[in-house]
Amino acid sequence: MEHAVVERWGVFELSLPGRAEGNPFTDYAIHGRFEGHHEDVMVSGFYDGNGIWKIRFMPSYTGEYRYTVWGSFSDREAVGTFRVTEATGSNHGPVRVSWQYHFAYADGTPFYPLGTTCYVWTQQPDERIRETLRSLEEARFNKIRFCILPKHYDYNLGEPRTYPFEGTPMDSSVLTKENFMDYTGNAAGNHFDFTRPNPEHFRHLEECILALQRAGIEADLIVMHPYDRWGFSCMGREADDLYWNYVIARFSAFRNVWWSLANEYDLMRAKTTDDWEHFGTLLVQGDPYGHLRSIHNCIPFYDHTRPWITHCSIQRQDLYRGAEYTDEWRKQFGKPVVLDEIAYEGNIQHGWGNITGEEMIRRFWEGAVRGGYPGHGETFLNPEEILWWSHGGVLHGESWKRVGFLLDVLNSVPGNGLRCLPAEWDSVCGIPEDEALARKTGYRLYYYSFMRPSFREFHIDDTTPYRAEVIDTWNMTVTDAGTHRGRFRVDLPARQYMAVRLSRC
Amino acid sequence: MEHAVVERWGVFELSLPGRAEGNPFTDYAIHGRFEGHHEDVMVSGFYDGNGIWKIRFMPSYTGEYRYTVWGSFSDREAVGTFRVTEATGSNHGPVRVSWQYHFAYADGTPFYPLGTTCYVWTQQPDERIRETLRSLEEARFNKIRFCILPKHYDYNLGEPRTYPFEGTPMDSSVLTKENFMDYTGNAAGNHFDFTRPNPEHFRHLEECILALQRAGIEADLIVMHPYDRWGFSCMGREADDLYWNYVIARFSAFRNVWWSLANEYDLMRAKTTDDWEHFGTLLVQGDPYGHLRSIHNCIPFYDHTRPWITHCSIQRQDLYRGAEYTDEWRKQFGKPVVLDEIAYEGNIQHGWGNITGEEMIRRFWEGAVRGGYPGHGETFLNPEEILWWSHGGVLHGESWKRVGFLLDVLNSVPGNGLRCLPAEWDSVCGIPEDEALARKTGYRLYYYSFMRPSFREFHIDDTTPYRAEVIDTWNMTVTDAGTHRGRFRVDLPARQYMAVRLSRC
Repeated sequence: MEHAVVERWGVFELSLPGRAEGNPFTDYAIHGRFEGHHEDVMVSGFYDGNGIWKIRFMPSYTGEYRYTVWGSFSDREAVGTFRVTEATGSNHGPVRVSWQYHFAYADGTPFYPLGTTCYVWTQQPDERIRETLRSLEEARFNKIRFCILPKHYDYNLGEPRTYPFEGTPMDSSVLTKENFMDYTGNAAGNHFDFTRPNPEHFRHLEECILALQRAGIEADLIVMHPYDRWGFSCMGREADDLYWNYVIARFSAFRNVWWSLANEYDLMRAKTTDDWEHFGTLLVQGDPYGHLRSIHNCIPFYDHTRPWITHCSIQRQDLYRGAEYTDEWRKQFGKPVVLDEIAYEGNIQHGWGNITGEEMIRRFWEGAVRGGYPGHGETFLNPEEILWWSHGGVLHGESWKRVGFLLDVLNSVPGNGLRCLPAEWDSVCGIPEDEALARKTGYRLYYYSFMRPSFREFHIDDTTPYRAEVIDTWNMTVTDAGTHRGRFRVDLPARQYMAVRLSRC
Repeated sequence: MEHAVVERWGVFELSLPGRAEGNPFTDYAIHGRFEGHHEDVMVSGFYDGNGIWKIRFMPSYTGEYRYTVWGSFSDREAVGTFRVTEATGSNHGPVRVSWQYHFAYADGTPFYPLGTTCYVWTQQPDERIRETLRSLEEARFNKIRFCILPKHYDYNLGEPRTYPFEGTPMDSSVLTKENFMDYTGNAAGNHFDFTRPNPEHFRHLEECILALQRAGIEADLIVMHPYDRWGFSCMGREADDLYWNYVIARFSAFRNVWWSLANEYDLMRAKTTDDWEHFGTLLVQGDPYGHLRSIHNCIPFYDHTRPWITHCSIQRQDLYRGAEYTDEWRKQFGKPVVLDEIAYEGNIQHGWGNITGEEMIRRFWEGAVRGGYPGHGETFLNPEEILWWSHGGVLHGESWKRVGFLLDVLNSVPGNGLRCLPAEWDSVCGIPEDEALARKTGYRLYYYSFMRPSFREFHIDDTTPYRAEVIDTWNMTVTDAGTHRGRFRVDLPARQYMAVRLSRC
């Protein structure tokens, strides 16, 4: 084999012919050891169909590596070397927790996740997938949550483009908006072999993950979910383990992968806390790169203090207050707070899917200034029943246009992120998490939410000069409001959704 | 004395010459007994200055009454009779608690308090007082909270038109927006004699109470409050008692009086729970008509389960959620919930005084549909610094225009008021408090708040026909949405602030 070259945090992949007889997914195994000067990593590979076995590795360092690949998949060991070069372009490595409550890429660049959700965008026709990618880039979302498995739910009653296992599904033509909830879990008419993953399904997901990677977008993979009529939500421990190990072997080497164990884990009646702890352990053991790990609630939060959980992935529990609890959740769990569902901008019948763009952006700012990371979603009815929340496509609302502006503001925060001061009762004030930087820069970001002050008064100290700026978070303007010392007043336009940014001159 | 005639729930008043030497307010007393066929009531009168003593009585029944008035104010007893005729016009008597969580006039007519607050509207020039009365009527407010004592606070730094005691105040020209908080309680320069109430101050208040009465508006009298530079908030028990007894003697006989022991009682540092319990007892003993009694918080609620408290007078404790807790407060306290402060529509600097008209009306509906009674307030900056919240005058906002519409909807509720069903998580549904009426009428009032459903589905039962109406609470329209049975769908315009009303055909 020729001497391969791969970028740091890129993927080194080997494709090897091997055994295909019997059931390759259960009967054989493939393992690899990847040794560089700074790491020595063992991973498992996977059967990709057609007699081809693959194994993938993401190097975390530069320099020379050598590998050995072996296992019952083949009588022959594969050995070789490759060289890892510096990362280039937008490759900053995988995202890690930074400063306890925040995120940064492996190279230290701060990462402020402002994401969205399109549960099964990968299951749509190619043209819609391209449309989704264009929409994501235009909105400057830098994270997207989506499912590995197909989805059965209102507006999602048809067949996905592929199934994750060999077999045949029940006839979806019997489903209607009225009866679909009668078909849950393993409904009659499904014939799937949970011991035989369908490589095509996963290969397509990889293409989507890589397309996101090229666009600088993190792929928050939802490994399990309850919206199911095929039985994938209740396969049993043995089949679950095969699925998890297959997923881990296929996807771990992509630097932009995050693991979400489940969406609305508490709606998965067939699973227990023991199961989730077990899957968490599988991830910790099977993913040598330590990609971010979370588990997302419908009603009760999972215990986000569990050691395998890297950050809170939160769906708000209260119809009225949500992002406003961000600072309390930080205290409670001691981890980054990602507000992955704070309701959807839209107009469907359900209260989780019909808030205004203004309210969405208000929740974004409430969450962000309190040191958390809000997530977007959109559910507008249309004759084609193509809803961003599930299918991706084009965006119809108003909030997505204002996400990039918040991202710009966050990028201007000294250090790696904000924490919330116990400020005035009627405003929230974010300062840099890094205490020394906070002192040095005097940076303060006040947010006034739905309130409409005509002015606000400030008195940080008697002597330090502060530059004041008025930020209109809805109209996306930043207006200089002069330099002040001691007690001073900043005039505001008495509109909702305003902020004031102070910084030491 | 001629044989007087007075209306049921009107005021029978005697003016008698009496002793004026020494300090009539402390040295002498006046008592009266009023006997009719159905009641036998003892009350105290008061010194009105210039050698005149007065005693007032509000008869609760029709027919012949006789009275005896005696006391150290005079050597002579006064005796006589009068006749009480039926109430006429808009006189329905004083408001009582009805159906545990609601209100009705003494004649049984339901009363749905939708009030406002103008703390010291009575202390303004005559022309502004007339303007306030016109504004109240135009907005159809049926209750107003205001102070008996003058107010010292931002936008309220000048002299009131009268002081409640004889004496001279500190020089208000030293006060500025920056220093006014330095002058609290009994500041230097005040010379008041707390043993000598100023009858002119109280006489003027009576005129205002009567003007409200003529307009069908309840006068929710705030007897004490903390916004003070003259010492009225910290007079000590003896002076407090003299003040309370004077107030009770003067105002109890007016049918439209409600007693609010204090505004933001918890900010009155000189007062203890023992004091409030004592004042509550004075009211129970001194007001024989049992006018409604409450005590209003800044932060912590008073224990509204105390027996002398007739209803909860609530200031919301949470910046984000307020009226949404109405049903929980009903459960907690077992009494009517009056949301006397849910923030003010306006644009001042403080978060309690700068919400939008939309948010105010949203809070009104959230509170009302949950079986509570929301209150309005307005704080718009203007060059004259005449803010409705304190001074009355004209209304500048948008919410007041929509209060009468809610009142009309409440008036259409079968029975005496609403209670909240444990309905869908994403809507609130009010039904008649009276279970039998609820069953008989099938009345249901669903409210969707800031959510924007394009439609909602209903399924009360399989057979009963329901008439559906779509209510736009902001644009104040009621649109017929047909008659339906079984599972049915009501289309909505995907705007905020919509409601659906169902009633059995």
